[in-house]
Amino acid sequence: VTESGSDEARTLLGNAAEALPEGALERKLGEGRALRVKLGIDPTAPDIHLGHVVVLSKLRQFQDAGHLVVLIIGDYTARVGDPSGLSQERPQLDGDEIERNAETFKRQAFSVLDPERTEVRRNGEWLDMAMEELFRLARTSTVAQLLERDDFAKRHAERRPISILELLYPLLQGYDSVAVQADVELGGTDQKFNLLRAREIQVAYGQAPQAVVTMPILPGIDGVRRMSKSLGNYVAVTEPPEDAFGKLMRLPDAQMPLYYELLLLRRPDPRRPAVELKRALAREIVGRFHGEHAALEAEGRFDRIHVEREHPDEVPELDLGGEDPVHLPALIGARFGLSRSEARRLLAQGGVRLDGEAVDGEVLDLPAASLDGAVLQVGKRRFVRLRGRSATRPG
Amino acid sequence: VTESGSDEARTLLGNAAEALPEGALERKLGEGRALRVKLGIDPTAPDIHLGHVVVLSKLRQFQDAGHLVVLIIGDYTARVGDPSGLSQERPQLDGDEIERNAETFKRQAFSVLDPERTEVRRNGEWLDMAMEELFRLARTSTVAQLLERDDFAKRHAERRPISILELLYPLLQGYDSVAVQADVELGGTDQKFNLLRAREIQVAYGQAPQAVVTMPILPGIDGVRRMSKSLGNYVAVTEPPEDAFGKLMRLPDAQMPLYYELLLLRRPDPRRPAVELKRALAREIVGRFHGEHAALEAEGRFDRIHVEREHPDEVPELDLGGEDPVHLPALIGARFGLSRSEARRLLAQGGVRLDGEAVDGEVLDLPAASLDGAVLQVGKRRFVRLRGRSATRPG
Repeated sequence: VTESGSDEARTLLGNAAEALPEGALERKLGEGRALRVKLGIDPTAPDIHLGHVVVLSKLRQFQDAGHLVVLIIGDYTARVGDPSGLSQERPQLDGDEIERNAETFKRQAFSVLDPERTEVRRNGEWLDMAMEELFRLARTSTVAQLLERDDFAKRHAERRPISILELLYPLLQGYDSVAVQADVELGGTDQKFNLLRAREIQVAYGQAPQAVVTMPILPGIDGVRRMSKSLGNYVAVTEPPEDAFGKLMRLPDAQMPLYYELLLLRRPDPRRPAVELKRALAREIVGRFHGEHAALEAEGRFDRIHVEREHPDEVPELDLGGEDPVHLPALIGARFGLSRSEARRLLAQGGVRLDGEAVDGEVLDLPAASLDGAVLQVGKRRFVRLRGRSATRPG
Repeated sequence: VTESGSDEARTLLGNAAEALPEGALERKLGEGRALRVKLGIDPTAPDIHLGHVVVLSKLRQFQDAGHLVVLIIGDYTARVGDPSGLSQERPQLDGDEIERNAETFKRQAFSVLDPERTEVRRNGEWLDMAMEELFRLARTSTVAQLLERDDFAKRHAERRPISILELLYPLLQGYDSVAVQADVELGGTDQKFNLLRAREIQVAYGQAPQAVVTMPILPGIDGVRRMSKSLGNYVAVTEPPEDAFGKLMRLPDAQMPLYYELLLLRRPDPRRPAVELKRALAREIVGRFHGEHAALEAEGRFDRIHVEREHPDEVPELDLGGEDPVHLPALIGARFGLSRSEARRLLAQGGVRLDGEAVDGEVLDLPAASLDGAVLQVGKRRFVRLRGRSATRPG
């Protein structure tokens, strides 16, 4: 390992969770050439949110240090759909939809990545392989090796089914690394197993194994579960500035250190109050994707709406009564004397807001904890402050 | 289940080990149509031996009752070779070799089967499927279901590796049943798991599941392990009549009931001495494949050689000294003052005999137990009687 390799690795790793195996990245960097840094993308959820931004920003650091990013769009695997056949979360998409999603993802990813140093590939280029090639791939790994993956081990121990197709996925992902001759692969900490397995598969194909860099998982705006579209707890890079601003202002205080480290690549000043840290975070992130002007406008709008929160006596409260998740059309219908379909139409048209930000008309169920204290606005004049835990009602 | 279905099933099952699930074969037979009865064949060992004859004879019974046999030659899977990548027993063959083996097998199988009621297929016709089709197949089964197979379960428990390719084999075998729309599948008892899994796969593809008939495994002429080419304990249907006769005469007495039931489809007369039962068995089996005249000649030759065994003082004895297995070139070289390569050449030319039958020049190592008491003949005049256990030598 050269000294320059070690120095560069220290700079590049920064907020990474792990670099594996020890010394591997340093050795690759020490070779003094432009490395091929792989990221695999699932095109079933095309909109990039801040969870993606964490990993994309790390890739951008590699690019700024002269390396090449290989973005692999999993179009082939998306066409296959959910390998367990059990979950609704990973729908089977048709070719057009995948193509549209891939284009969306690519366009949005370039708001972080440098297109000049990005090679975009689709795994459909190589995964529709001859059966003999698949057999060769299947020979590289054993059942026991794959069942070591945490989620497989847990499900196997609990006698919950794991389809053979699911078992093939880490192999296919490893084959992606072979196909693009990856020197480094990035992913969330939940991908650690697959990224390490890919090393073994590269070796079986006579390639030097990739170095693995994992990034911490960004929690969603509920501060509990990972940020994800399907959980409705995300901030997308393309959503309207005022919505993004409002969502970020609703983050739990305790998330500031992690959000700062993963998105702003620095530690928050511990002397500043949480609300100020949040405001600075929201301004900086909205500014990054929409420009400084839009960020200031969003902040102003947030402040105007926020007046409602400053004058609690003017806003009646509504106890959610322990319902969790809360079904918005039912809540709106019951509170304001509308039918559920009227409520749903209002939601679809963006006529319902939470703390001033339009509610995504497709996410009808929200966790009660994320609503506690929020002001629900229906149309122009109807307001109510939601209470998720207390049983007190306004007089 | 119709009464005729039950009657026919009783007749057809006879010496079968199991018919699964209960009543399935009866129901199929009760449909009153010609059933498609599948047998899968591994073309790595093309010479049909008596172990194959057990299953082929059962298929012949189905043909005689009006049903159709679908013989599937596993040319595609043979091309892939040993899925574990660990064993030498299942070599990876090239296309020409597979083709020759398949032709050999087919020709020999028709010494038992009725060609008019046999459909011969190659699984290469359908196994080189599109990857999406393989994914569909991989979705039909779970890891836990496949790990239920006895040998997988044992190896998994003992932490011995099972490659993913091995795990795919039962799926591919099941897909064979889908491809040929099998109504019934036959196999050895060791195939029970795969044959039952094929049922589930047929159902996943919208087909009625096959009935499963398993046959007992025929022990080799050592009376211990299953008859197999690689173990050298087989009697091939095409080997010279005198060799087959001699081998069958060397069978352990205890094997008579099983050999009679599986090959002659009747029970041996318990009042007759074992040696007579063996002689009748050898005559009948050699006669079946070579004609009655050849069987009588083989018997005569056996008797002439046997004279050597009747006059033990004329044949010196050789203690094998606990060596197991016995490496024939070394033994012959040491005993008769030949170099090992001379001994090997003699073996290759058929110039070495055990109890009068030529030794297969490719099998150089034999279990000591199978040699005890046998007369080894090298060339025309050199004889020695082998002793595997005792330490006494001739004076």
